[in-house]
Formats: sequence, structure tokens, C-alpha cells
Amino acid sequence: MKGTVLYGPRDVRFEDREESRIEKPTDAIIRMTATCVCGSDLWPYRGIQKIEQPIPMGHEYCGIVEEVGSEVKNIKPGQFVTGSFRIADNTCPHCQFGYQSGCENLGFMSGAQAPQLRVPFADGMLVATPDIPSKDIVPSLLAASDVFGTGWFAADAANVKPGSTVAVVGDGAVGLMGVLSAKVMGAERIIAMSRHESRQKLALEFGATDIVTERGDEGVAQVEELTKGIGADSVLECVGAQESMMQAVHSSRPGGWIGYVGVPHGVSLAGEQLFFEAVHLHGGPAPVRRFLPELIHLVWERKVNPGKVFDLTLPLSEVAEGYRAMDERRAIKTLLRP
Amino acid sequence: MKGTVLYGPRDVRFEDREESRIEKPTDAIIRMTATCVCGSDLWPYRGIQKIEQPIPMGHEYCGIVEEVGSEVKNIKPGQFVTGSFRIADNTCPHCQFGYQSGCENLGFMSGAQAPQLRVPFADGMLVATPDIPSKDIVPSLLAASDVFGTGWFAADAANVKPGSTVAVVGDGAVGLMGVLSAKVMGAERIIAMSRHESRQKLALEFGATDIVTERGDEGVAQVEELTKGIGADSVLECVGAQESMMQAVHSSRPGGWIGYVGVPHGVSLAGEQLFFEAVHLHGGPAPVRRFLPELIHLVWERKVNPGKVFDLTLPLSEVAEGYRAMDERRAIKTLLRP
Repeated sequence: MKGTVLYGPRDVRFEDREESRIEKPTDAIIRMTATCVCGSDLWPYRGIQKIEQPIPMGHEYCGIVEEVGSEVKNIKPGQFVTGSFRIADNTCPHCQFGYQSGCENLGFMSGAQAPQLRVPFADGMLVATPDIPSKDIVPSLLAASDVFGTGWFAADAANVKPGSTVAVVGDGAVGLMGVLSAKVMGAERIIAMSRHESRQKLALEFGATDIVTERGDEGVAQVEELTKGIGADSVLECVGAQESMMQAVHSSRPGGWIGYVGVPHGVSLAGEQLFFEAVHLHGGPAPVRRFLPELIHLVWERKVNPGKVFDLTLPLSEVAEGYRAMDERRAIKTLLRP
Repeated sequence: MKGTVLYGPRDVRFEDREESRIEKPTDAIIRMTATCVCGSDLWPYRGIQKIEQPIPMGHEYCGIVEEVGSEVKNIKPGQFVTGSFRIADNTCPHCQFGYQSGCENLGFMSGAQAPQLRVPFADGMLVATPDIPSKDIVPSLLAASDVFGTGWFAADAANVKPGSTVAVVGDGAVGLMGVLSAKVMGAERIIAMSRHESRQKLALEFGATDIVTERGDEGVAQVEELTKGIGADSVLECVGAQESMMQAVHSSRPGGWIGYVGVPHGVSLAGEQLFFEAVHLHGGPAPVRRFLPELIHLVWERKVNPGKVFDLTLPLSEVAEGYRAMDERRAIKTLLRP
């Protein structure tokens, strides 16, 4: 089969790779229905994250189970499934606490930008849909695998409740999913911080009630004004930079909650400042598996349409263009069809 | 009257001061029954915190109301009261959210190490006991004003629940109150990290089930071992140093909660590390006022005896010796009687 491999900065190749096969009795092989490019794929693509050796790319997936190992009990060939972007057994104590992101058998999925994928710990990783989905909801089921699950976790970590006032820092795919998640959780007011018109439009479609275009201290001042000087109850930090993190901390009211899911790059938090701001801080790699059944249900019942975040669809063989379009900000997120 | 004033490092004087009087119609004057020296008083005492001008010392208090301003409605002369160490009106939006520590009219109480004290926003600040308390519970009612309230907030911020496994970093008065609070909240296991025999003894009395004497990485390893490699559900950070904060972060399980109440001195948190540890972090100056009614109830019903944390009682006039004893670690906490 052919699959996607990153050789160096901006050097994505769609090339011959070995067929996936069952390696352990707990594995499953799935035939990809749709996969996509993640914002985090752009770090090594841009050379920000070092590439030691060619990397099989892709960690978001959904498709039909082709084969399962001898110990797999819950997942059967022929089922349509999706699963988390992190490898976790879903049985260890951390998984039981709902932190599959801290699993004793933690691993990072790779190689999903291909027609076929081996999924370890299939019973723990995969969640089957009630039936084979109709085509129109496939993008949304794919989104649950990472980007929707991560936006959902940001809102969950930020304690969004019915009636909450929420600010979302970052208008990338995850930030937009954060807006959608906050809306589903009943937020009354959702302030999306965005400079890009197309993303503002999508944010409003997903449930944003206000758009703030300013960044840094000016952005904070806008949130203050919109909240009558109180600050937001919940802030979703979906970038991972020093400025965006500080923007999140300062946009929160005393005792407010910050859910941060942008992988921090060079972020440093001063203990004394955090102390006197008295915010709640929680974040990390999203334990998507915890939320998957609920997210699939929401999509299946057509209560949400997170698949709208894909504004470019390409044949898998054109994956390199999918990366380019996101790198050049011509696309928010690229869906790939084998 | 005479009161306590700090002039410079280790220069505490008990000297003539002006009588307290009603300055605003929302003030109350209380006649002190008991006051005490706080761990945080030691920072300026030791010269770690700069002293710009002579500081009237003391922010923990309980006593009998002598006089109230014309606008005070809930508090009456003759009542026994205690109140928070932070000045807050208890009516602004932040107070309504339970974060009196972020009040729009925030201030820091001072001058309580004296026979008399003016309390602003008396209706918001003070909570009266059901009756004049018997002598034996006065130290515990005094403790509610700060040290017990702060330990309680640490446990609350660390999400201690019935059945929780808790680690407490720091064996000062606040850490010991954290142990007691975790016990009251139903923690099943409480690991107190302490090197000092007298404090270990008190920790065990307050409900600790395990003592860990190691610090830093070795302390973390001990907590790991005691929790079968999982880590603690809740960690109370009651010191405020870089090492103790890191000890707290590493002692938590993924997705665990850290309540930090030690005012951070030079603490810096790396965003990426926090992210991958996936802890919940919450702390700050304790909004004691939120908890006061419950704390007073617990003391009044003799369900807790936080007053045991005072291991030295002196006449107020010997306040300088009270500071010395704490500075030299001869006392955990000094109670002063006018």
C-alpha cells in the first residue's frame, strides 16, 4: 500500500509502505474511510520539531474493521469505528480515572494518513458506531478522533456549564471545536478571539456570540469590557504560546477556569502571578477516549456538525497539497479520502 | 492602647498606638479575645519581604464586637465574631462567586496583634458564633480566621473527596491544617511529608495515615510507592518554593489535583511539563470568608480542634518572643492573649 511519510521540513511523500498486519493478539486492522492532517503535524513539517528519521504521518482515523487479533472481544470485522489519537489500553488505573492520556501503556498513533491502519489495544481504543454511517457524517466522526475531542476537553477542563461566559483563545481547528463544545455544554456567551474572517464566520456558526479581533493586553481589555469588568468564567487556550496563555490567564475572572490544550512551546508561568490571579488551570493531551461515546452520539443524532471544520477535501494521494494548504493558511483543516 | 509594629528585620515592638475608632459607617470595632502570629509574618520579620515603613502587624483575630458603624446591619455589639484575614465586601461579583480573595474592594487586614481592631465592611467580613464561646474553643475559632481556612481551601482546591488519596507537602501550621481538612472531607489516605518529629505527631493526630520524611525526588518516589505507582489524587502544596511545587506536581497522578496555598516565592512552572503531567492546578490567597460559617460550625460542634496547632501561648505584650520562637522553629504557631 501507499502511505504518508515526512522526510524533512516540507518534504511529505506518499510512497510505498508495508501492508499493515496484526502484530499482537490485541490489535485490529482498519480500512480507512477518511483521515486528515492535524495542526500538530505542521510542527515537524515546518521544522519546529526535529525529524530524526522519516516519520509515518497521521493519527486521526475512522473506517471499517478488516481484521482483529485473537484477544479482541468488543470490536468485530465489518464495524465502523473511530478511536483516539493516543494509544492507551483503557484498563490501567489512569485510564479508569478517565486520563487515558496518562496510560501506563501510552503511545502515540502514527501512520494513519494511509488506506489501512493497525490499531493496538483495539478493545480499549476503538468505539464502534451503531451502524455504518451515511457519508455526510463521516467527517464529523473523523473529527471526534482528535480535533473535536480536544476542543471538547478544553471546554470540559475549563468547567463550562449551562450559563457560563466563555472566552476562546485561538481560532485554529481546535479553537473552533472549543466554541462548538462550549455551545453544546450550554454556555450563554462565547467570545471567540479571531482575526481571520473565514474563521470568525465558522466560529459564529458553531455558536460564538462575540468576536474579539485584538490580541494580548488589548484582547484582554475587550473581554473585560464585554463581561462588565468581571472576566470570563471559563477560558479555552487553544494555541500554546506565551502570549496566548497569558491572554487566557488575564481574561479569566478570579477563581475562573482555564482549559489549555495547545501544546505549550516555550511557555513559562510565574507562580506568584498565577497565585494572585487565583485561576484554575487544567490541560494536557486530551483523553479523547473518555469522551468518544458521547461525541459519537452527538454526531450520530445530528446534534452537532464538527465536520464543518474541514474546509478542504483531497484524495489521499494529494496529501502533500493538504499540508501545503494548511501551512499557508489557505485551509483550516484538510480531510483526506483514500 | 499598645499594639505590635515591625520596624525592620527581627525588630518587633509592642508600643503605644492610637485607639481604633469607627472611620466609616460600615466599620466595626472588636475587642480582641485572641490573636496570633502567622507564618507569613515571618517574611518581613526575616527581611525576605522589604519593609518600607513601620508595619502594624497581625491579621488573624476573634473577639467581642464593641461598636458598629451606622450602616452595619448583621453584626451587633456584644457578639463574638471572627473574620477573614483579607478585607472584602462580600457583595461584589467576585465575592458572590466565592472568591472574596479577588474582591473589587480587596485589602489586607493589619494591626490585629493588638487589644482592639477596626474591621471594615463588618457585615461582609465578620461571622458571629451562636453564643459567647467557652474558653477551650477560642483557639480553634481564631484558627478559622486564616490558618484553618487556608488549609481548608488547599484541600478544597485539591478536590479532596471521600475516599481520596491525599499528599500534603509542607508541615507548617497550614500544612497541618490541610491534613485536618482532608480528614474532615473524608480522605481515606493522607500522606504527610514532614521531617520534624513534633509536627509528624500533630499530623498523625489530625488524621495523617502515612509520614514521608524525604523531600524532592526521593519524597516523590515514596509517594509513588505508597500509592502503588499511581500517584496521589490530591496534593496540598503548603510551602511556596520551587522544590515543593515540583514535588507536588510529580506526586500527583495524571489528572490529579494540586491545591497550592503557599505564597510562591520565585516559583516558575514550565508550560510543557505541566501539560504532559496533566494536573489540575488551583490556588491563591484563601477566600476564607466562603468557608467561615462551615468552619465555625465544625468547631462549635467540637468535631475538630484546629486550635491544637498553637503550641505556644503568650501574653500579647510578649509578642516579640512569639515571633522569635516561630523564627527559630521552637514553636509551630504562637497564640497571643491581650
